[in-house]
Amino acid sequence: MNVAIVGLGLMGGSLALSLKKLDFIDKIVGSDHNKEHQEQALELNLVSEIVDFEEVKKYDVIFLAIPVDGVIAVLKNLTDIDENTTIIDLGSTKSIIVSSVPPAIRKNFIAAHPMTGTEYFGPKAAIEGLYKDQVVVLCDLEDSGKFQQEVSRKIFKALGMRKYFMGSNEHDRHAAFISHMPHAISYSIANTVMKQENKHNILALAAGGFRSMSRLAKSSPNMWEDIFRQNKSNLLEAIEVFEGELSMLKKSIENDEWSEVNKTMNDGYKLHDILE
Amino acid sequence: MNVAIVGLGLMGGSLALSLKKLDFIDKIVGSDHNKEHQEQALELNLVSEIVDFEEVKKYDVIFLAIPVDGVIAVLKNLTDIDENTTIIDLGSTKSIIVSSVPPAIRKNFIAAHPMTGTEYFGPKAAIEGLYKDQVVVLCDLEDSGKFQQEVSRKIFKALGMRKYFMGSNEHDRHAAFISHMPHAISYSIANTVMKQENKHNILALAAGGFRSMSRLAKSSPNMWEDIFRQNKSNLLEAIEVFEGELSMLKKSIENDEWSEVNKTMNDGYKLHDILE
Repeated sequence: MNVAIVGLGLMGGSLALSLKKLDFIDKIVGSDHNKEHQEQALELNLVSEIVDFEEVKKYDVIFLAIPVDGVIAVLKNLTDIDENTTIIDLGSTKSIIVSSVPPAIRKNFIAAHPMTGTEYFGPKAAIEGLYKDQVVVLCDLEDSGKFQQEVSRKIFKALGMRKYFMGSNEHDRHAAFISHMPHAISYSIANTVMKQENKHNILALAAGGFRSMSRLAKSSPNMWEDIFRQNKSNLLEAIEVFEGELSMLKKSIENDEWSEVNKTMNDGYKLHDILE
Repeated sequence: MNVAIVGLGLMGGSLALSLKKLDFIDKIVGSDHNKEHQEQALELNLVSEIVDFEEVKKYDVIFLAIPVDGVIAVLKNLTDIDENTTIIDLGSTKSIIVSSVPPAIRKNFIAAHPMTGTEYFGPKAAIEGLYKDQVVVLCDLEDSGKFQQEVSRKIFKALGMRKYFMGSNEHDRHAAFISHMPHAISYSIANTVMKQENKHNILALAAGGFRSMSRLAKSSPNMWEDIFRQNKSNLLEAIEVFEGELSMLKKSIENDEWSEVNKTMNDGYKLHDILE
């Protein structure tokens, strides 16, 4: 099986490192319109060669590991692929992407969201094992061809991932709460401290807690702009629910309702009983 | 030098493990009014013996590693110590504690805040090396006795900590932004997801980002209730500044001002240029 990976950043580069180890993968090439990323990907030996975008159409499996607006643009240029080609998109949003797939290649298309990553990006961020033991959400799988379903199952199984099946709308709502809203909050926490007059003094004191809460603000603004735009309504809903929660906690603190404050924190604490 | 540690949880227990390695420390005993913690501290060999609270007064250095309301209560019962005794408080708030120290023992008292910790608590959470290479903030140090200043400097230096000197009011404002507000947010993120009807589905998808942002919600609600109460006005201010930030980001998203959204995230991203 020959594989082309479009986008050689954290997700695409890490994927290349894992696919290399699989005996049924014969060849892995990459495509990236960032010249520097092309060079880094070759230096890091992520892929065996860099090919033009037109070239990727000849490969059995085409992974799209690019920002979610890019996925939509690229799909429009893949309508002339073979009927047995499998396109697997790894983006963090699904509804708009799925509805943008040209009908001619809908059966070729697999909508996947691997629930894994780090805050770093670019080819140098690629790490082996990023996918292993993690969850991959497969959306609207019934609309993909049987052959393509089998190809994707085989690959994700070999990568050691746990598969979840979900409608793309449901996925986008869940992703807003579990990932997109927390990213928005992390950027806002970072900005809150950055705008304090004495930010250097404050940051001198930063310990693990602040680092945890501001870590996601190291993520790529360009990538997240696309995700926020594509998942706008779910994201706004999740932010509003969060704002309501924080506002209630703030009110209890303001009003010296300390048993209520304690209860609220105890409720949040229980998360970790169900978060495996 | 003989040391008594009041409170054998994460902070006190970890301190015992580090102090043990220092050649100028002869004996380390502990006091804790939780019977189970007493037993665990002995089993884990954190201290050589458990002593009654009255007994701790005989020791050269008394560390207070208990919730911040407890610090205030305990200080009232330490007024009959020797003039060369050093009391070092490790609490996360400072203003109210410093103003509550009985004048008779103000010179004995050192207000310290080690900027370190984990989300776990109790003696079993104790880990060696928790203090090494971390920051300790020493507040209003000019009000402590010269002898006690020297004792505390010697100990924190031997623990491998970097010392910052600050007024207690300044400390509390910084701590609100860097630590207390992020804790409040983490509890609210946890509650936001817990109240969703499909929380199990959502949590099945939880990856590193959500785990980072909800980690602090594993902290002890009882300990944090005290901190929030003692640092109420700074905490409320920090929450309000954060709410303003998040609200601006939300408005830009609502209004499809994507270059503004991107700029906001880029501003937050810059945090990591100055966060060493």
